[in-house]
This record gives sequence, C-alpha cells and structure tokens, in this order.
Amino acid sequence: MDFPRIGRLPAGPRDLVSDVAGVTVGHATLAEGALQTGVTVLRPHAGDPFRDRVPAAAMVLNGFGKSTGLVQVEELGVLETPIALTNTFAVGAIAQAQIRLCVADNPQSGRAQPTVNPLVFECNDGFLNDIQALALGDAHYRQALDAAAADFALGSVGAGRGMSSFGLKGGIGSASRRAGAHTVGALVLSNYGRPEQLVWGGQPLGAALAAWLAQEPAPEKGSIIMLLATDAPLDARQLRRLALRAGAGLARTGSVFGHGSGDLALAFSTAYTLPQDPQRPMPAVALLHDALLDPLFQAAADATEQAIVKALWQAEPVTGRDGHARTALRALLPELLTSNPSA
Amino acid sequence: MDFPRIGRLPAGPRDLVSDVAGVTVGHATLAEGALQTGVTVLRPHAGDPFRDRVPAAAMVLNGFGKSTGLVQVEELGVLETPIALTNTFAVGAIAQAQIRLCVADNPQSGRAQPTVNPLVFECNDGFLNDIQALALGDAHYRQALDAAAADFALGSVGAGRGMSSFGLKGGIGSASRRAGAHTVGALVLSNYGRPEQLVWGGQPLGAALAAWLAQEPAPEKGSIIMLLATDAPLDARQLRRLALRAGAGLARTGSVFGHGSGDLALAFSTAYTLPQDPQRPMPAVALLHDALLDPLFQAAADATEQAIVKALWQAEPVTGRDGHARTALRALLPELLTSNPSA
Amino acid sequence: MDFPRIGRLPAGPRDLVSDVAGVTVGHATLAEGALQTGVTVLRPHAGDPFRDRVPAAAMVLNGFGKSTGLVQVEELGVLETPIALTNTFAVGAIAQAQIRLCVADNPQSGRAQPTVNPLVFECNDGFLNDIQALALGDAHYRQALDAAAADFALGSVGAGRGMSSFGLKGGIGSASRRAGAHTVGALVLSNYGRPEQLVWGGQPLGAALAAWLAQEPAPEKGSIIMLLATDAPLDARQLRRLALRAGAGLARTGSVFGHGSGDLALAFSTAYTLPQDPQRPMPAVALLHDALLDPLFQAAADATEQAIVKALWQAEPVTGRDGHARTALRALLPELLTSNPSA
Amino acid sequence: MDFPRIGRLPAGPRDLVSDVAGVTVGHATLAEGALQTGVTVLRPHAGDPFRDRVPAAAMVLNGFGKSTGLVQVEELGVLETPIALTNTFAVGAIAQAQIRLCVADNPQSGRAQPTVNPLVFECNDGFLNDIQALALGDAHYRQALDAAAADFALGSVGAGRGMSSFGLKGGIGSASRRAGAHTVGALVLSNYGRPEQLVWGGQPLGAALAAWLAQEPAPEKGSIIMLLATDAPLDARQLRRLALRAGAGLARTGSVFGHGSGDLALAFSTAYTLPQDPQRPMPAVALLHDALLDPLFQAAADATEQAIVKALWQAEPVTGRDGHARTALRALLPELLTSNPSA
Repeated sequence: MDFPRIGRLPAGPRDLVSDVAGVTVGHATLAEGALQTGVTVLRPHAGDPFRDRVPAAAMVLNGFGKSTGLVQVEELGVLETPIALTNTFAVGAIAQAQIRLCVADNPQSGRAQPTVNPLVFECNDGFLNDIQALALGDAHYRQALDAAAADFALGSVGAGRGMSSFGLKGGIGSASRRAGAHTVGALVLSNYGRPEQLVWGGQPLGAALAAWLAQEPAPEKGSIIMLLATDAPLDARQLRRLALRAGAGLARTGSVFGHGSGDLALAFSTAYTLPQDPQRPMPAVALLHDALLDPLFQAAADATEQAIVKALWQAEPVTGRDGHARTALRALLPELLTSNPSA
Repeated sequence: MDFPRIGRLPAGPRDLVSDVAGVTVGHATLAEGALQTGVTVLRPHAGDPFRDRVPAAAMVLNGFGKSTGLVQVEELGVLETPIALTNTFAVGAIAQAQIRLCVADNPQSGRAQPTVNPLVFECNDGFLNDIQALALGDAHYRQALDAAAADFALGSVGAGRGMSSFGLKGGIGSASRRAGAHTVGALVLSNYGRPEQLVWGGQPLGAALAAWLAQEPAPEKGSIIMLLATDAPLDARQLRRLALRAGAGLARTGSVFGHGSGDLALAFSTAYTLPQDPQRPMPAVALLHDALLDPLFQAAADATEQAIVKALWQAEPVTGRDGHARTALRALLPELLTSNPSA
Repeated sequence: MDFPRIGRLPAGPRDLVSDVAGVTVGHATLAEGALQTGVTVLRPHAGDPFRDRVPAAAMVLNGFGKSTGLVQVEELGVLETPIALTNTFAVGAIAQAQIRLCVADNPQSGRAQPTVNPLVFECNDGFLNDIQALALGDAHYRQALDAAAADFALGSVGAGRGMSSFGLKGGIGSASRRAGAHTVGALVLSNYGRPEQLVWGGQPLGAALAAWLAQEPAPEKGSIIMLLATDAPLDARQLRRLALRAGAGLARTGSVFGHGSGDLALAFSTAYTLPQDPQRPMPAVALLHDALLDPLFQAAADATEQAIVKALWQAEPVTGRDGHARTALRALLPELLTSNPSA
Repeated sequence: MDFPRIGRLPAGPRDLVSDVAGVTVGHATLAEGALQTGVTVLRPHAGDPFRDRVPAAAMVLNGFGKSTGLVQVEELGVLETPIALTNTFAVGAIAQAQIRLCVADNPQSGRAQPTVNPLVFECNDGFLNDIQALALGDAHYRQALDAAAADFALGSVGAGRGMSSFGLKGGIGSASRRAGAHTVGALVLSNYGRPEQLVWGGQPLGAALAAWLAQEPAPEKGSIIMLLATDAPLDARQLRRLALRAGAGLARTGSVFGHGSGDLALAFSTAYTLPQDPQRPMPAVALLHDALLDPLFQAAADATEQAIVKALWQAEPVTGRDGHARTALRALLPELLTSNPSA
C-alpha cells in the first residue's frame, strides 16, 4: 500500500487533531493567480481563550522564523487566542486581526485588563505565492475562525495553499494517536525538506525524487509548524517536553532541521483552563506523573509524522506566481516506489 | 542637586546611545486628544541592516510582553532591521512597515533571499492612549526612520508619548558610559514601576510619591524595553550577557521585575557586521575576552539606570484618553525630596 | 542605626529561611589553619525528598559556576535531595555523599528506581581556604545534615567559612518576608562583590571601603548562591520567575553580576510534594494565579538583599591560607559611614 | 548486508570522531563480576584545554540526567577539560579527578586563576553494573586519559562497558562524515531505547526484537550522550545548533527521547582555541556563514546515527550484577532480519 500508516498506536476516530475533544480547525484560502496563500486557525476550545486560557508551551527546534507570541507563552505557560498559521509576511496583519477580535469580545483588553497576546505561526510560501503582495488581513482571519470545525480539509488549503515540501506540494496535515486513556493530536503546516531527503513512511525515496525533479541540491528555505493538542492533564513544563517529541517525528521524514527551516512546535492541553481574571478560582489539577509520559511522547512523534505524510498525500498540485508550480506527491508516488531499490 | 548622575564611569560626549558611533534614533509622535502614542526607531548603522547584519542578543527578564522578532535573534544572533519601539497593539502594523521597506530596498526578500525578520518592541500605553484605536502604521514608522539622528529628544516623545512609570509620566531615556576603550549606550522605553517602589538615584522616594499620588497599590501593568549598543567586539553570546546587566540598573530604581511588566533587554555591537549574502566573505573578528567584560557590565547597568532617570526627568506631563493624566516627576521632585526623611 | 532593615514587608518570626515551615538548615565548619571551609545543608522538609519531591526551579544569572544538578531540576521541575552549599572543588565529593545517603535510604535507587540527582551549589573560597586540599567529604555532609534545625548560625560558618564579599568577610545569610498569606525565605552564600561596589542598605559605601582597603580594582572572582523557599503553591515555571527576583535584591547591593561571579538562584515551594513513585497519586494543586505574584516577587528581592546584609553583618574575621585574612564589615562600618558623604 | 551504512556523505578515513584532526579517545574498563563499568575520555586536542579552551555548546534534548559542567559551558561557550563519560554515580569522583589533574598542571587554578570546570557526562549502567559500589575514581580517569589515541575500541568498553540499548548490549560508538571541506565526527555512549522501538539503518526491527526478548514494554530508563567534533570554524551559538542535529540521527533509530532517558549532545570545534589567560591575544576568527551549515547538519545527524549503529554492532555480550545479562545485536541480527516482514 502506498499510503503509510505510522507506528503501532491506534488513531482516534477522525485521525485528526480534533480527536482531542473541543479542538476545531478552519481555513481561509486565497487561490487566484499569483496569490496562493491563506490562513488556518486552530481553536483550542469553543469558548474565549482570552478569558479561559489554555496551558501551552513551545519548543523552538530551529528559530529561523518570524512567529509571534512565543515570548509570553514561555513566560506564562498559556495561550490566550486561537492559534493562527499563515505566510511569513502576513504575521503582523493576522496578529492585528486577533487583537481586533479580542478587543471586540473583551472591551477592557489593554485597559483594565491586560493586552492580549497574539499567537501567529508562519512559513514562507514565496515560491508559489506573491508573498510581497501582503494580501491577507482581518477578513481572512475571521473567515478561517468562523469555519473552524472538527472536520476540516487537508493539503493545499488555508495556510497550506502555497507551501512546498521536498520540492513537491506541501500544506496542511493532521493526525491523532491514542496513548492509553489520552489522545494526542497533531496539526502541521508543512513547508520544509529538500527532495533528496524524503523518507516516506520509512522508505527512503529521496534519491528517486531528486532524480525525477532533476533539481540541484538547494539550501533548505522552508519551515514546519507542528501543533500538538492533548487531553492529558499536563502543565507548561510537561507540554514543552511533549512539543520536543514532534521533532522526533519530523526527523524520521528525513529532516535534519535545516538552517533555513524555521521548525517550531507548540503543545497545549485541553484538560483544564486557567482564568484570565485573578478573582476567579484556580482549578485544582492533578497532573499526569512525568514517569507516565512515554506513551504520550510516542503518540506525539507518531502523530506528527503521520500528519506530515497526510499533508503530502492530500496536497493538490498548485501553480502560482510567475508560473511556479509544485507537483503533488500522490501522482508521483508509484514511480518513486518503483525506482527505489530498497522499497 | 536634584538630577542624579549614576555611577563613576565617564559618559560619552552626548550621554546618549548615539555616543556609540553610527547609532541614530528618530521619533514619530502622535499627540492629539485620546491618541497619545508613537514610534521610536533606532538604526544600528547608516546602511541597510538586512544586507549588513549586526550581532545582537536579547535577554528576557520578564516575558509578559508581545515584542516580535526575538525567536530569530536568539537563533541567528543578528538583527537585520532597525529596532522599532511602539505600543503593544501596534506591533503588527509596524512589523508590516518594516517588511514593506525591506522589500522596497531588497526586491528578492522572501524570494531568492530569505524573508526579513521584523524587530519590534512594545509597552502598553493604554492608560493615556486610546490603544484600541490602532492608530499607527507605515507612515509613522517611515517618519521615525527618516528622523533618525545622533541628537534626538527624550521624554514624552515617539513611543514614549503615552508611557507611564511609577504613576508618573514615563517615556524615552538614553545615556552612555565609557568603559576603557569602549562605549556602552542605552536607550530605554520606560513604562514600569509602582509609585511606592521609586528609588531616584539611590534615594528611596517611593513612600513620599505614593502618599502624594494617594494611590492604592496597584498591580504592575507596565513594561520596560532596554536597548544597549556597544562598539566593543562582542558576539551574540557575550551580548546576551551584556543585556542581562541592564536588569541590574533597572533593579536599582526599585523594580522587582513585576509580573505584569514585560522587561526585555537587547544588546548589539557595532564593531563589525555580518553579511546576509553567504557569498560575501565573513569578517575575521578578534572578540573581547570574557574576562575583560566587567567594565562593560558596569557601564551597561549604569547607563541603563541613567537612561531611566533621564526618561523621568525629561518627561513632560500628558493628558490623554478619557481625561487620564500623568504628572511629570520634575515638577514634583523638590516636594518629594523634602518629604523623604532619608534624603 | 547601622544595621539596615530592607523594605517595608514584615519579616517572619525568626527572619530566617526557616520561617517557611518545615525548612531547616545545618552547617559543618572546617576552621583549622589553611583549611577554612565547610558545608551547609538546607532540608526542604523533614522527610526524604527522594520519595517526596519538592517543586523547584533555578535561574542562572551568571553561569560561571560549577554547581551540579541543575540540568535535571530544569527538566523535571523538582529537587530530590537536600540542597548542599560548599566550595567549588568539593562539589563532586558532596554529590557522592548525597548519593551514598540516598542509596542507604532507598536501596533500589539506580536499580528499580531512578538514580538520585545530587544538588550541590558552590562558591570559590580559595582566597582564605586551601581549596586544593580537597578537604571535604561524606562526614561533613552528614554532620551538616544532622545539624539541620530551624535555628542556625549565620556568617563565617558552614560553606560560608572561607567566603569573601566586597573585599571583606562574606558567608551565610538568611532572612524572610511575609507577602500576604505567604512567606518567602532566603538563604544566601555570599562570596561576590568588589569593594568599590558596596551599597549597604541603600548607602553607597564602596568608595570609602575601597579607600580603606587600599585595593586596586580587581576583577570579580566570587559568586553568590541564593536559595528561596516559599509556602505559596507555585509550580516550577512560577518558581523560576520567583528565583529571578533574587537578582533584583542582589543588584541593589551594588552587584552587576560580574563576569567571574557565578550568580545562581533556586526557588522551591513547600506547599505540596510530588511522589517519586508513579503509582502513588499526584496531588490536586490549585496554584497561585500569576497575577497575584507581585507581593512574592517583592518579598524575594527584599529577603535576598536582607540575607546578604545579614551575611556581612554576622561575618567574623577569618585568617586562613598563607596568612590571607578578611576583615569583618561590622568593625569597619562606623568608619565607613562617617567617611561616606551621602550617608 | 547486515551492517547499514548511513546516508550519502563520505566518511573520514577511520570513520571515527578522530577523523577530526587532533581528537583522541581513550578508555578505562572495569569488568570483574558485578563491576561492569568504566570511563571514556575524549581529548579535543593534544594540549591543555584549561589553557587553550575549545569553543563548545550543549543541547539538552532531555535533561533527566546528572551530567556536570553544562552551566558554565552554556555561559562561556568553551570547554576547558577533556570530556569524560562514565556511569551516573561516578560523576562526582571523575569530576574530582579532573580537578586534581588540572591543579597538578596549573597550580594557580582556584587561586590566581579561575577554578576549572569539570565536564562529565553519564548514563546509568545499573542493570549490568553494581553502580552502588562507586567503584570508579582517579586511577580510571587517568588511565583513560593516558590511553587516548586516534584509534580506539568501540562497543562494550570504557564507559560503555555496562550500558544497554533496546534491551540489548549498548556502549561506545563513533563515526565521521565529510561535509565539503569540513569533517564532523560523533562519539556516542548508547544506553537508551526500548526493544520495540529499534530501527536499524531504516529497518523497523522493534517488533521482532521485542518478540525475541519476550519482554514486557518497560519504561525507558536509559540515556544517550552524543559528542560532536568538527574542524569547521563555528562559535558556541552555531555549535549549539549543530548539537541539536544529533537528535535527528537519534530519532531515526526509533527514539522518541523517552522520559527516563537523559539525551544530551555537546558539539565543539577544533578550528581555533581561546586562551584562558586574558593577557594573551584572542584569535581573529572568520566563522562559517550560517547559511552554509546545512551540510554540517546532515553530517551531524548521519554521523550520530552511524555511531549508534556501530555501538550496537561492536558491542559484545556482558553478564554482570546478579547474573543480569545483555545479548549482542550482532548474533541476533540475522534472525531479526528474517522475521521482519518489511526487511
């Protein structure tokens, strides 16, 4: 079978990040000529995360990236907006959109209440997309937010519209794994990888792919954003540990966290929320013991690799700026598998 | 004398950050009714920092803040735009302005060249300024950039227009200190401090100030940004060490790095630049030996404290949103010194 | 009055770290000719911290130091031995002593159970003490552990026996502050500071001290270890924030965290413990809201500065290796205060 | 062929870390009944690293470990002793041995000169070795140091004597890769991995191995230490980036950086040294541009995976404490490959 299933842990019913109850994802996609880009929004729960904050932590594997909001996530261990994914030059515009919506819902934000911390991750889709057009803004963020649902599309959609991986079309992927009583879900924005590096479900297809693409080895200029959700009761310190394990899944696909690839992971827990308002009571939380984390670590690595595989598998070919085009892996795969001597 | 001079090291000729040769600073100030805000830009050298990057490192003392660009600064150890200071909700807009200007100067940025890393620091001026108006944008960034000069105003100007400190008017401060053959300069955006904490050049004026302001102790909701420039040949690791010492100067003014205060420092060196283009040769740099850093550490702490003192000293009173007003320390100081039993 | 009381918060009944209930401290002191050194042990509670671990986090202000155990404290957010303070070259020997005692109490440590993580901090007492003699070992650690009590000596005792500060005799100091319903206690091992830097309860005595000592400015070669205990329910992330505020207290005494000074802080909470054994239930903890941390931050800074003041105040003069001697501040203070024009 | 060659980059002449000119490695092995342990020493150059320090940086992938010396390596970006590998409970004893040798060579260490920073990494060999016997000391460190050579044994030797991986015998591995004009070498101490996780040169042998070993899934209790040497002119910031890429090689073998596995990497450069004595001139160094790091990152990942493969391949079976025994992979491999349906 061509589509590899990663690891031995069972997937959740959707094999999506939304198998973690309450998590939803929506897209806004721009696909007109040279504009091949978009916004993807992940909502950690159905409420207002500014009021009911979610424990979270990031792991910067390679900080060659322009994501915003991570300084405060590290200090306070919470996220307080939906998580937005977009292209590199849209970070500021989408952050402004997050601020506007938060202020609309919380008129004292920045006055009697603290300012909100926008949380926007990015990859550079400048090969396919005219990134210099700065085409994204408030409307796209709101559209993606309003579209958020437990079922959502993968591949060349939302923030993934213009992304590339391994010289092929990249984009949005998602998967989930069960680890005992808990679930770990992954959502990736895949825009990394040189052709010769590709390992597909354990199969080293890089040499065949590079030959097919007849590309010269080019420096890595991509990025990958890996979001992990879990319903296990973890705190920020533990979530940072979990986020690192996304890197193990990434490495199995052939990545060595290339210099030009901003490889970032963020993990959050839906097991409890923390009130913005210090007058409200703090929840009494019995965390998972660290010695019981191993199944979650395995799930994080496996779900991340699976999400990347699905991003490539679901990606449709896209032609964009200046006639630049990316092929979809799916069409190419039979040929690659045939020419791979070890497959 | 009322205006304290900090420490025993000599100042440079201007006692400004621009005593580090090549460094310039400019402001754009918005002062109309409820809009009391602005942008301040520090240029590390007269050229294009995207092409000729400057070694830099940040130290997050308290990450309750929304500054952008620090992830990449930490990974690569360089800054590649002028440094912008502004209000919290303007970070995205000013980051977009930095991108637009970089693309104008470097048409391949985000295409054949990497995307540029915007570097914007912020404090919340929402007490005096209608921060929710999102009033700042491209034009203000360009105005501040064009105004950059070795001589520049302090106090209630630029990003400092709407800032508060110790329940008084805060704003922009700057100072410099000589450390042997080298100079360390500081530029601060001062928006932190509760009245009862104020230590003024070693004098504890907090009790008198709190009594005068008749305020209830309020949680710290401010921030301070501390930029350090030096002409000493340091690398990013050493610059991170230098940046931390700004915190020693800050602590002497009474700060305990309060929870709600995003206290960030960034240090850079003008002794050499690093080319964006890997085809250009890298400079051969003989760094300063770490064992010779102590005078620079002293200079960093002293220049920072002096810059804060000057921010308060130069600040003019401002009335803004909803009639909110902040008094200037200068008018109040004689009274405070009289009522301070230890002064 | 010569002995300064720091800040406005009330102290606990002993003004010692042991005002945090359950915390005890003991010393073993070696004071024979060229051997002027020792061990100080802080027990976070009366039980076995390997079985019942204590939430903890460290903040490395200046990592020019050889303390051991911090890698695991950062990863797991707990300490699992009493905390030992000693001289730089004794870290390995005291770590071995901690291992031996843990194995004696937990015969499966390193077998069915994990290995124990020794936690030893150090400063270099090589000016007064023949540090190369490697004179400390198991017996001294056990002696200090057995001596641990809520009442304990300060100054030239235990690990403080051979320490110097500001060209004077340094050593062990301790203090506590109440912050609302909670207490923050500090224990310091003070071995930092150049004479010209000394600020004594807000009074700049450095110039007078340097003149009296007639020393040339020498590079900082000391260190300070600052331990903070609190009964507030904080997790490791919050404790790291608390630990940083010890640095604010340190800075007020004149320190700029000199290059050669290994300045480290560690904070722990006694509000709950975490079981080593994953089969035992985890406690359900309602943490303090971060927005309520400011009084604890103030207490941490004030207790640290007060502990340093007490270390200098309680220190007795010591003569050690090669006739090297350190004067006690107490005898000198009247003269310094007289010659300080601003005092 | 059973022995997999990793990646497409060429190896150096020895395929050992000593292909980086000047690097040597030596072992001291204790193999008597219940004592199955040892010390391995890597010398970065033939001189005294206390006098001529080597740029270095560590990356803590999982800090569940007791290695010592990393706080100062992070602060100063240099190592100043040979690097020692040993068992968990021997860290203190070997650190003392490093101090004694440094003092013998530098009589002013800890007096006129700074104290030396011992650098000792560890894994827990308590399954095969009676780790509680604390059997290692000065003599073993000196023996390993004296034995250091460009040619050295792999497998169940030195610190690797008692180590286990994937339920099999682990130990010492080494490899090198050429990246353009530069070489990257790896030395690993392999003590990690559960049987079901094993991926052998891309082949998933875990299911077959777990069936053969008939073990219940056990929590990961191991560790791996990964040392990288390079002759490329990198500074500490860049070396930290390089060290992280060892984790990519590790992940390809099936590791998800398990909770109980202290996974640490350290990278150093031999391209230049930095004088301990600040009176000596600092070298003028033209660093490698970060945009040229990708081949080195690939080399780091490949050399690490290859070194792990060689550690398993070279390991001889060992029986130790209480009759505990570990099989060698080599004998088992044909059977595993036969029963692996995908091989």
